[in-house]
Amino acid sequence: MHETRERVLAAIADEPVSGPELASRLDISRAAVWKHVEALREAGFGIASDDAGYTLTDVPEFGGSAVQYGLDAPFEIEYHNAISSTNARARDLADEGATDVVVLADEQTGGRGRLDRTWHSPSGGIWLSVLFRPDVPMAATPVYTLAAAVAVARAAREAGIEAVIKWPNDVLVRVEGEERKLVGILTEMEGEADRVSWVVVGIGINANVDPGALPSEADATSLSAVRGEPVDRRRFTQRVLETFDTVGTDPDAILDEWREYAATLGRQVRIDTPNREVVGEAVDIEYPGSLVVDTGDELVTVSAGDCDHLRPIR
Amino acid sequence: MHETRERVLAAIADEPVSGPELASRLDISRAAVWKHVEALREAGFGIASDDAGYTLTDVPEFGGSAVQYGLDAPFEIEYHNAISSTNARARDLADEGATDVVVLADEQTGGRGRLDRTWHSPSGGIWLSVLFRPDVPMAATPVYTLAAAVAVARAAREAGIEAVIKWPNDVLVRVEGEERKLVGILTEMEGEADRVSWVVVGIGINANVDPGALPSEADATSLSAVRGEPVDRRRFTQRVLETFDTVGTDPDAILDEWREYAATLGRQVRIDTPNREVVGEAVDIEYPGSLVVDTGDELVTVSAGDCDHLRPIR
Repeated sequence: MHETRERVLAAIADEPVSGPELASRLDISRAAVWKHVEALREAGFGIASDDAGYTLTDVPEFGGSAVQYGLDAPFEIEYHNAISSTNARARDLADEGATDVVVLADEQTGGRGRLDRTWHSPSGGIWLSVLFRPDVPMAATPVYTLAAAVAVARAAREAGIEAVIKWPNDVLVRVEGEERKLVGILTEMEGEADRVSWVVVGIGINANVDPGALPSEADATSLSAVRGEPVDRRRFTQRVLETFDTVGTDPDAILDEWREYAATLGRQVRIDTPNREVVGEAVDIEYPGSLVVDTGDELVTVSAGDCDHLRPIR
Repeated sequence: MHETRERVLAAIADEPVSGPELASRLDISRAAVWKHVEALREAGFGIASDDAGYTLTDVPEFGGSAVQYGLDAPFEIEYHNAISSTNARARDLADEGATDVVVLADEQTGGRGRLDRTWHSPSGGIWLSVLFRPDVPMAATPVYTLAAAVAVARAAREAGIEAVIKWPNDVLVRVEGEERKLVGILTEMEGEADRVSWVVVGIGINANVDPGALPSEADATSLSAVRGEPVDRRRFTQRVLETFDTVGTDPDAILDEWREYAATLGRQVRIDTPNREVVGEAVDIEYPGSLVVDTGDELVTVSAGDCDHLRPIR
């Protein structure tokens, strides 16, 4: 969002400020103040004006300016009401040299998950892709997938939903004894072995979505369906981005929190890796994101693959 | 190269074939035959024509048509006399959706190695980048770097040069007791953790290059300097691409051949990884390309980093 608009919002958040006073504080003309206020109203912000000046009365439930306003993470938000795929747009931005951008949409018309699987993304969800350029080798990138899962699970728990994480990239909630998917995460990257050029972490959250709008074979549900009321998408998105941003400074804390939320640890799992099938008890997660499986004969470390939670044999 | 031109060359390689006969075999007009023959002569092929017909008398030492002619690997050659960077061009081709293309140049004006280091690429070298789309997870890509090193080392040995490989990506030759660099390899890739979208393996070979044209701090030499005479760049490039292509079907054979050529195994090494320094004896290579180092206390597996060969302490 326009930096000056953020400063206008900050100025009028707590008390009325007159037009001339705003113009003076921001070092812009009174006409420019008026234009910014109008643009903010256009974006859905409620801004009262009376003799005392302008006062912020309402922040929109969602949108680029709304999520940018008060966001405590160093990302620029690029918002779309509808877009084919936020990951595809973020990859294009990466090719243009951009970084620290979040592509955010209310609806995706061509969303996809891992391995080109279709990912339904109706209006009311939170569909976002974070583009950044960490100074790490390619092999370190799985930690960003874990960080995204932790960020969404924590935000869901703050919203009263007992979300759990299934390795490597699903955030689930237990509904009537069945695990149902709330979130999908797709991490893409480019670079050389020693150094990543860019990473795009796509996070698709079934937020305020009617589960009837999701395909039944996806075993999916939504935050609003589980809670019985909508979540505040603006605040939810901000919390996800703020937690995600901490992975750069403290990956160990992300791993610890991942263990806390993990539905996979302690479970019997079957993992289809490109080379083999691994069956056993998932016993730990290792940096940067490998699952440690006790097959009974040995400890196997798995870095990628499809994971099924098996029911214990009684 | 134009597929019809390849068929013209194949037809006239061993015996003269008349224009009408060629037109009939290739199902094209006699005017088209003439045009293809002229284009091939333009590209440097020697084609005699007399009463018996056309006969191939000479193949150019280098160039796109020359390398394509007789190449036993499924790559299209895109040749440039000079280009900024074959890897950059291959990445652009990847963004356009291309695959199985080799970008080849006689000279690079902006070549670079790992971590953006400058890579001098004067005329007379073999500067190439292979673009392909293997169906493998991201974690498997280091094997392509090993395959490139094996491919060049084998071709060098076939040309009478006792090349050795230094982990992870250098091909060296011992000159007056010093290891000197013949080749640099830079592997770049894009994709998601479970599946690569594309891989570009850049291979820069100091072929028929005056070592005086290379910076002295690079400790580099060239194939022609070591041999005392130029190598056949066409045949050398073909052998590199043909060996490289076998990695898709037999990665184990690549690892075995890597061990045979490795200068690093059995040596004391110091490796600067992004997280730590590892010092010890390099004891093995593991799929997909990790070096196993015996530090005295433990076996450490290193997947990326700068490797120094230490002189034994006597």
